[in-house]
Amino acid sequence: MDHLDHADHADHADLAGRFRELWDSIAPVGRDPGSGGYLRYAFTEPELALRDWFRAQAASRGMPVTADGNGNLFARWGDPAAGDAVLTGSHFDSVPHGGAYDGPLGIVSAFLAVDELRAAGAVPARPLVVAAFAEEEGARFGVPCLGSRLLTGALDPGRAAGLRDADGVSLAEALGDRPAGARPDLLGGFSCFVELHVEQGRALVERDAPVAVASAIWPHGRWRFDFHGEGNHAGTTLMADRHDPMLTYAFTVLAANKEARLRGAHATVGRVRVEPNATNAIPSKVTGWLDARAAEPETLTGLVDAVRAKATERAGRDGTEVTLTEESATPLVAFDGGLGGRLAALLDAPVLPTGAGHDAGVLAGHLPTAMLFVRNPTGVSHSPAEAATDADCAAGVAALARVLEELTCA
Amino acid sequence: MDHLDHADHADHADLAGRFRELWDSIAPVGRDPGSGGYLRYAFTEPELALRDWFRAQAASRGMPVTADGNGNLFARWGDPAAGDAVLTGSHFDSVPHGGAYDGPLGIVSAFLAVDELRAAGAVPARPLVVAAFAEEEGARFGVPCLGSRLLTGALDPGRAAGLRDADGVSLAEALGDRPAGARPDLLGGFSCFVELHVEQGRALVERDAPVAVASAIWPHGRWRFDFHGEGNHAGTTLMADRHDPMLTYAFTVLAANKEARLRGAHATVGRVRVEPNATNAIPSKVTGWLDARAAEPETLTGLVDAVRAKATERAGRDGTEVTLTEESATPLVAFDGGLGGRLAALLDAPVLPTGAGHDAGVLAGHLPTAMLFVRNPTGVSHSPAEAATDADCAAGVAALARVLEELTCA
Repeated sequence: MDHLDHADHADHADLAGRFRELWDSIAPVGRDPGSGGYLRYAFTEPELALRDWFRAQAASRGMPVTADGNGNLFARWGDPAAGDAVLTGSHFDSVPHGGAYDGPLGIVSAFLAVDELRAAGAVPARPLVVAAFAEEEGARFGVPCLGSRLLTGALDPGRAAGLRDADGVSLAEALGDRPAGARPDLLGGFSCFVELHVEQGRALVERDAPVAVASAIWPHGRWRFDFHGEGNHAGTTLMADRHDPMLTYAFTVLAANKEARLRGAHATVGRVRVEPNATNAIPSKVTGWLDARAAEPETLTGLVDAVRAKATERAGRDGTEVTLTEESATPLVAFDGGLGGRLAALLDAPVLPTGAGHDAGVLAGHLPTAMLFVRNPTGVSHSPAEAATDADCAAGVAALARVLEELTCA
Repeated sequence: MDHLDHADHADHADLAGRFRELWDSIAPVGRDPGSGGYLRYAFTEPELALRDWFRAQAASRGMPVTADGNGNLFARWGDPAAGDAVLTGSHFDSVPHGGAYDGPLGIVSAFLAVDELRAAGAVPARPLVVAAFAEEEGARFGVPCLGSRLLTGALDPGRAAGLRDADGVSLAEALGDRPAGARPDLLGGFSCFVELHVEQGRALVERDAPVAVASAIWPHGRWRFDFHGEGNHAGTTLMADRHDPMLTYAFTVLAANKEARLRGAHATVGRVRVEPNATNAIPSKVTGWLDARAAEPETLTGLVDAVRAKATERAGRDGTEVTLTEESATPLVAFDGGLGGRLAALLDAPVLPTGAGHDAGVLAGHLPTAMLFVRNPTGVSHSPAEAATDADCAAGVAALARVLEELTCA
């Protein structure tokens, strides 16, 4: 067989063209013409259309598809009796008005990497499996990495079944069944996992490199602040008589920003819910969600404690009450150092940590796991402004093909 | 005939009982069992049910009902040829999770006042008309006092027809037709307007009086702040690289509170909209609505200018942009001093200004207009905690009946 490092300089423009062709086949699905962003929530019509696309792509390559009963799909190339499979892939679902690449790039690139390997005459010694994970963003049911958490047993299927979306539809209703939960039978058949993902920052722009290997995922979590006050008339209530939870919320937003900057950490309040949310009513309740991340667990704890203390102090002055609920917390994930180092050497690529959670972070507790990042010229993520050039996407496909060749054929 | 001041001490307990009986006939309509508040938006099912109730109450009293083509209803007692009518009434619609009394109390009290006058043998020299105005709160289509503004010509019917609710339904669709707009033919047939309303503050509690007469409505308005930033990933975007409009919003909320307190004015940000409103996304846009009111127009202008200046200064530091749009502005309304003084003397009631807008404020530009307030023991308004005792409501009915007797029979 031709090794892919020889095929590498064959025709990158051709690979970029093949990328563009396959990419265009999903680009319109779930796109909001107003924002230019995507509304691809798990198990809704656009995401179901992408699942159909996945099955069609697998079928056209002769790859049988397995559903794991948790919403995750697996397409296999190679004889399952030949040994534990190398797993790759990502997710289809988006945040509200998210970008095109976050998730789907890892799935499209995986199918194209299979094509590259086949064109080069590669004959894998063990199977290669392309995965589409469900609800990675948590945008519909509130739990990020829902599919991979169920698969690995990190999330109880009974609890997951009862999660509801904003319209009151449960996950069990959306899935058509109660989720299957942990599947050690499936998981035990994988030897390692490599997820390719668009970069969600500007490190690769600064390093002038199209592809990187991930070293770790920062510890991170979501905390819900419920600010309780007294609903009242905006026109007639004296300022001195108010118990306005919007004031406590606003102060907490600014405090989170300041405390994160002081610590070199990240804090964001990007979601808020107000009751009754009327122009002429002092709110009775404001709920804000804090997303916080830091390189070290103790920095993260210190950040959240400081924001809580400031919110509580301000609530005392506003005559409101505040409660804090940890909705999710993900510890530091250090990817497999041996695997990451091997891939970085193979690709001559930089090694970077990331502040973003991924299915790879969940699977890393069960399998040697690595991630590849593809350069994003805007550095913007979770927004229609997210971007990647076709040339960089082709470089990503080529890198993934080399990695998969190394892992399946060696 | 018996004058009502003689009937006054007849049986107040009976009147409170009659109030309770009629009140109970509408109490369940549109009540949210969760909050205990009301969801009575104009032309939705609960508010349409209240309109049916209005027609049934009018029919049972032999009062023919006229619809003005703007969503407002008028039930008449007395021969229209007998002269210009005395107008009373209020509105059925609520803010989200509003209280029971704000609006409906003025309509229920008006029908009961008719009963009191009839029971006392009053024979009005001119007609008495009970009105139900549409969309006073502006909770569905965003324009408060929509019905009275259309009736008086203060709002263009073409513009109003295209106003849309949160589901995209237009006012024309909700009405079943384009609104009729100004109806000078109807308005010219009214000699004066008296609106009874639950108090939206604690002044009557402090004065130990069940009923007051209004002197004026503070100048007030709604201003929309649009904060534009750059949507991005909450986990991966460095704090220094952010253009987070939530920060500018939060600072503006606190600035509005501070500037209002410094001036003895009222400022509230009770409504906010975030795009995309996801926990793990820095928002691309935050919109906040400022409700501001003050006793003097120049105080109000100074307040809004100061908040705008602070928001703009902060936007410069956050790398965001802010635009300010005046959505509505209502100048100072001084109610008819002659009419108000006459009613205050008749009732021996205190005279108070208010910070809340009302249909009476719109009609005051066209007719001698007065308002009666009924004591609210909590002082809370636009919230399920709004309250009024049956005894105070009965006192309100008795006061309204005396006023209407004075205006129709004298």
